[in-house]
Amino acid sequence: MDDIAVETLAEPELDEPVLIEGLPGVGHVGTLVAEHLIEEADGELVRRIHSEHLPPQVTVSESGVAELVSVDCYHVALDERDALVVTGDQQAASGVGHYRITEGVLDVAAEFGTDELLALGGVPTGELVEDHAVLGAASDESVVETLESVGVEFRENEPEGGIVGISGLLVGLGGHRGLDAACLMGETSGYLVDPKSAQAVLGVLQEHLGFEIDLTDLEERADEMEDVVERMQEIEDQNVPTEDDLRYIG
Amino acid sequence: MDDIAVETLAEPELDEPVLIEGLPGVGHVGTLVAEHLIEEADGELVRRIHSEHLPPQVTVSESGVAELVSVDCYHVALDERDALVVTGDQQAASGVGHYRITEGVLDVAAEFGTDELLALGGVPTGELVEDHAVLGAASDESVVETLESVGVEFRENEPEGGIVGISGLLVGLGGHRGLDAACLMGETSGYLVDPKSAQAVLGVLQEHLGFEIDLTDLEERADEMEDVVERMQEIEDQNVPTEDDLRYIG
Amino acid sequence: MDDIAVETLAEPELDEPVLIEGLPGVGHVGTLVAEHLIEEADGELVRRIHSEHLPPQVTVSESGVAELVSVDCYHVALDERDALVVTGDQQAASGVGHYRITEGVLDVAAEFGTDELLALGGVPTGELVEDHAVLGAASDESVVETLESVGVEFRENEPEGGIVGISGLLVGLGGHRGLDAACLMGETSGYLVDPKSAQAVLGVLQEHLGFEIDLTDLEERADEMEDVVERMQEIEDQNVPTEDDLRYIG
Amino acid sequence: MDDIAVETLAEPELDEPVLIEGLPGVGHVGTLVAEHLIEEADGELVRRIHSEHLPPQVTVSESGVAELVSVDCYHVALDERDALVVTGDQQAASGVGHYRITEGVLDVAAEFGTDELLALGGVPTGELVEDHAVLGAASDESVVETLESVGVEFRENEPEGGIVGISGLLVGLGGHRGLDAACLMGETSGYLVDPKSAQAVLGVLQEHLGFEIDLTDLEERADEMEDVVERMQEIEDQNVPTEDDLRYIG
Repeated sequence: MDDIAVETLAEPELDEPVLIEGLPGVGHVGTLVAEHLIEEADGELVRRIHSEHLPPQVTVSESGVAELVSVDCYHVALDERDALVVTGDQQAASGVGHYRITEGVLDVAAEFGTDELLALGGVPTGELVEDHAVLGAASDESVVETLESVGVEFRENEPEGGIVGISGLLVGLGGHRGLDAACLMGETSGYLVDPKSAQAVLGVLQEHLGFEIDLTDLEERADEMEDVVERMQEIEDQNVPTEDDLRYIG
Repeated sequence: MDDIAVETLAEPELDEPVLIEGLPGVGHVGTLVAEHLIEEADGELVRRIHSEHLPPQVTVSESGVAELVSVDCYHVALDERDALVVTGDQQAASGVGHYRITEGVLDVAAEFGTDELLALGGVPTGELVEDHAVLGAASDESVVETLESVGVEFRENEPEGGIVGISGLLVGLGGHRGLDAACLMGETSGYLVDPKSAQAVLGVLQEHLGFEIDLTDLEERADEMEDVVERMQEIEDQNVPTEDDLRYIG
Repeated sequence: MDDIAVETLAEPELDEPVLIEGLPGVGHVGTLVAEHLIEEADGELVRRIHSEHLPPQVTVSESGVAELVSVDCYHVALDERDALVVTGDQQAASGVGHYRITEGVLDVAAEFGTDELLALGGVPTGELVEDHAVLGAASDESVVETLESVGVEFRENEPEGGIVGISGLLVGLGGHRGLDAACLMGETSGYLVDPKSAQAVLGVLQEHLGFEIDLTDLEERADEMEDVVERMQEIEDQNVPTEDDLRYIG
Repeated sequence: MDDIAVETLAEPELDEPVLIEGLPGVGHVGTLVAEHLIEEADGELVRRIHSEHLPPQVTVSESGVAELVSVDCYHVALDERDALVVTGDQQAASGVGHYRITEGVLDVAAEFGTDELLALGGVPTGELVEDHAVLGAASDESVVETLESVGVEFRENEPEGGIVGISGLLVGLGGHRGLDAACLMGETSGYLVDPKSAQAVLGVLQEHLGFEIDLTDLEERADEMEDVVERMQEIEDQNVPTEDDLRYIG
């Protein structure tokens, strides 16, 4: 096995697809969107990237089959154009690995004639968020303008520490390869899986790429998460001693 | 020295041997089984893998001779077929190293015409286990079926975090090379060396590969371990203050 | 992308420029000087070094554009000679990375015919410093003499642990390539960004390289830092219990 | 610069010299012996190994000259034969680095026709030692016998965790290259620089290689260390409360 090995699982003809990346990260925002697109639009697995720069691990499927950790590329036909949706269970295992996997993904993108790239993720706010803004960072100013017109916010010096990992590098290295590239980051607390933030990001994608998709599934998961948060808050409230409790202690 | 150096110590003719791997891990289950097979069936050391991806270390033998850390491959003649038993004192020292050592082992397997692979280990339960089930994960569904028929349990999403290290990669990468590959993991507390769990795994191996082997040695080690556990429990019991102790404190 | 990729942004003719390096480090002394030179003398970005040995990260500019982490080389025309000023947001991400990035910088230096190199930084004293000496370490004794004549202090066994990172390697590896190379390290507490220490280093540069530059900007930043330190000291003083406070405790 | 760069500083003719390695380690035993040999027998620096696998660092000499971290090989003429003494300020910075530096040292050894190798170090006992035994581990049993005849002790399973780092690998990899190789490890507390343990190792070297060397310097350093230990013990004794102290507390 080489440094990076790309397995071919299907060879559909795609016409300049947009690459949409959603690997694990803050609030699982990117993976929630990517998996939603693949499930609702019946995506087809076309490429699988294996690499020694991923963790040395297999996951076990429901049928007991061990699957080597991989970064997976699906063909997803949206209403007006094709997309290459990239997702997986793991990020790279090292700094150098992030660069190598990113180059691997960009090579697959080039193979399919991709000229646009959207890397999805979450940006942590540190508190529970009601209104999920979608922040952006792009490879050049014309991309900034286009995305601002569909509601993406570009704020000075945000995210503060820059964007770390494959999402950031896809925009940085993708831009160097001449792609129109951007990160779209849904605001999220940073503590919980956040299907609401994923909906916000998906809203931007729908408007930008001109497609409609059923959101029922994400809405249901968002409702479930709200129940979880409520129950957590109740438990917390019960643990705060009331005046009555304190009477017995004093 | 290359990245991986394979030393040849013997050149027996083997007829499609099954590769059985038992490197150090949870409960030492894999190494206990591998070493038992090598000792009882009088295994012959045929290959020794050295690599800069193993820890930079020598061990010192009883005679004072320093031996470079290695992954060792033994020819073990079981009743009905040959086995290539792989064991050693150490896992790889890094994530990339796990991939490289695994490829090295698979290259040795290919050299001997291996088409089946069983990676042995333990799966931690977090509590003392009476009945040691053997869990499995396999390269494809036909292997799952075969192993289920000899008592291996395949449970949805277990082990939960997947299988990390050389055992997992042997199944993942071995499957990609076309081998019938599986992990066999004996349940074990995770706190102690576990010869009983090793016996359970060995039971599965005997039935699956059709051989019989003297288990006295492992049984004796299991008895010793039980004595250790009992003494530990006694000490613990003595440290719990009885009502009498408390009388003097109060 | 290779291990090291050098992007060409301009091709000015430089006549044996002196390389001046100021990457992030103790007290930000090096970056403060490098950035001051670039701003005041209107530096032109000529080379940008990208590498997988830098952190896997993009920073986001004010306009929302994502910029791949890089080490940047500017042409800065000083009064009597040209300089190649090297700066950036990040050091290398690993020990091997420090060696590789250093070689990359030295390759750029060679391309422009550089024969002299000054690596700037801070040396931590552990306490607030009034008088900022500039310590030196050089590739050979003739460089030591030249720099002593402009006020650089060379002290036995200082800095005690040697010089770690790209600055140290630029002198070590630069010397091996035949450059006249030196580290100039301004004394600084080690706790705060230190524009005063940067002024001291800049003073040595001015005298050594024969140029004059407006220091207003650094002086203003130094005044701001002094205000910060004063306010911190006031807060600290308020937290020390006075005799009056103690009366109530006792 | 390559992975490993060997700088040539002198080209003496050596007749099958014995390689003696003393890099930093437990009790500085190895470096103390190596430096003593170089100083007393007026060693000549013949090779300097630089590598990105060493820490990214320069040390600063008394004259203010920065020296790139290196592993240094000296020609030392002992009474009856030549020695190639290998020492330096640093071990390798990673596991892979230990392998690579070791191969670099063995390449230099081969260049000079070395067929015997002695890697020196300390073995920690965890308590202050009066009588410093010298433990051994060797590449094969004939070397074990030879060294036992000059007082080296070979003990079953000692040192318990094997020998880690360049010393261990020099014996392991050196043995594979056909050298007669051994580790000689002086017993030492593990807490302090130990010139007495170094004397014990040097005693074995003198008898084994048939040379005599002035030990005054090491004896003086040993006396100094004894003073340090005594003063530390006095301070400790003063801090133990006497009965008189306790009277006032109770």
